[in-house]
Amino acid sequence: MSAALEQLSSSKMFDGFNLRFRHQSATLGCAMTFSIYMPPSPASNIPVLYWLSGLTCNDENFIMKSGAQRAAAAHGIALVVPDTSPRGLNIEGESDSYDFGVGAGFYLNATNEKWKIWRMYDYVVKELPKVSVSAFAPIANPINCPWGQKAFSNYLGSTKSDWEEYDATCLIKKNNNVSTPILIDQGDADKFLAEQQLLPRNFEEACKAVGAPLILRMQPGYDHSYYFIATFVDDHIAHHAQFLKSA
Amino acid sequence: MSAALEQLSSSKMFDGFNLRFRHQSATLGCAMTFSIYMPPSPASNIPVLYWLSGLTCNDENFIMKSGAQRAAAAHGIALVVPDTSPRGLNIEGESDSYDFGVGAGFYLNATNEKWKIWRMYDYVVKELPKVSVSAFAPIANPINCPWGQKAFSNYLGSTKSDWEEYDATCLIKKNNNVSTPILIDQGDADKFLAEQQLLPRNFEEACKAVGAPLILRMQPGYDHSYYFIATFVDDHIAHHAQFLKSA
Repeated sequence: MSAALEQLSSSKMFDGFNLRFRHQSATLGCAMTFSIYMPPSPASNIPVLYWLSGLTCNDENFIMKSGAQRAAAAHGIALVVPDTSPRGLNIEGESDSYDFGVGAGFYLNATNEKWKIWRMYDYVVKELPKVSVSAFAPIANPINCPWGQKAFSNYLGSTKSDWEEYDATCLIKKNNNVSTPILIDQGDADKFLAEQQLLPRNFEEACKAVGAPLILRMQPGYDHSYYFIATFVDDHIAHHAQFLKSA
Repeated sequence: MSAALEQLSSSKMFDGFNLRFRHQSATLGCAMTFSIYMPPSPASNIPVLYWLSGLTCNDENFIMKSGAQRAAAAHGIALVVPDTSPRGLNIEGESDSYDFGVGAGFYLNATNEKWKIWRMYDYVVKELPKVSVSAFAPIANPINCPWGQKAFSNYLGSTKSDWEEYDATCLIKKNNNVSTPILIDQGDADKFLAEQQLLPRNFEEACKAVGAPLILRMQPGYDHSYYFIATFVDDHIAHHAQFLKSA
């Protein structure tokens, strides 16, 4: 994110600005876009919250649909929204399905030869700094669901222990140094919950086993859409504001 | 909106529901979609607010991007969002430009032979009841701007006096029975303002001339996007709630 940041757009909202940029990613070897919401009158040390979107998204869905800017403006927090995958690397088959490849948000460093240029983990963690955690309807235990198994076997190969480095349920068991509560909202009318793609209860069990603080809220009647996110995003921004400001 | 209402989707948001329907419009002679937001626990007499979108939109942009559901839920008001034009009537050239024909929101009854099936005014006013007024960056004086002149000459013919029936600035001059204030928000960084497409000052002058109550707010730095709408939509919902509830 150094020299050549090209600004694609700017739009005022809640007295701050939605900005969209393109830059050449050294990590990924392709041009990447990302969106930022800058709250009004930013201080010199402004807390930054990273939003990582899921399957089928790019850097614009959250900015356009979530309404998160209202709370970000109120709390004086900047939002940074990276794209969900490299684009334009032209790996054979990269655009063949919605749940794998281009536009499918799996934030890992691929090791399989074919995909090894796919290094979203490094892109997000090294090209952009890391923050405290909350989630909407996450794939909480990918090694045990069809979406995760498809992605991990193709990106990482068949060694299951390698997969555990990118599975929140496995990670929390191994590495319980979470000091601030993790907030998860999950709609109970979410069809992907019923299809056993998300598995939040597995993550909850793992948190209980190691004493990690988790707030898992099952929200009756809500589905997997941005309407669900828009409904509860204020709570998530307030959650992060609390810990970002005391840090 | 009688018999055959086909429900296309339902998504919970702020404890209410976004619903989308398709029905066969008797007025237009084609299938039309519209969106509704129903607030939680609706009373038997629930106030209804109609949102009419502009150029390039359909019934989904406002529902997806404005975040208006938060305030609608809080005030107990339903939102109804019709599509902006007939679709599928296959009039020659109907999809050739963004500012005329399919997707271009001009709510008039066309009289030119070629377009006379285009009766959005009757569709919205007769198939759906009428309410009090507010607007975001409206084409306030279409007979004097390029967008309006293109649309009116094609839909209505060359007689300028016919055009005045669909021009807010002309109508307020002729028919000043507005008892509740009209609220208009207009971004001053809106490129269509600079291009003389919107002309809110003409409308303001007409209101002053006849003593019609107008609140015209020029919002510094804001453009013509849904981000601008999302920023101020709460004020508009509150504005309508005040008058809908005292009616």
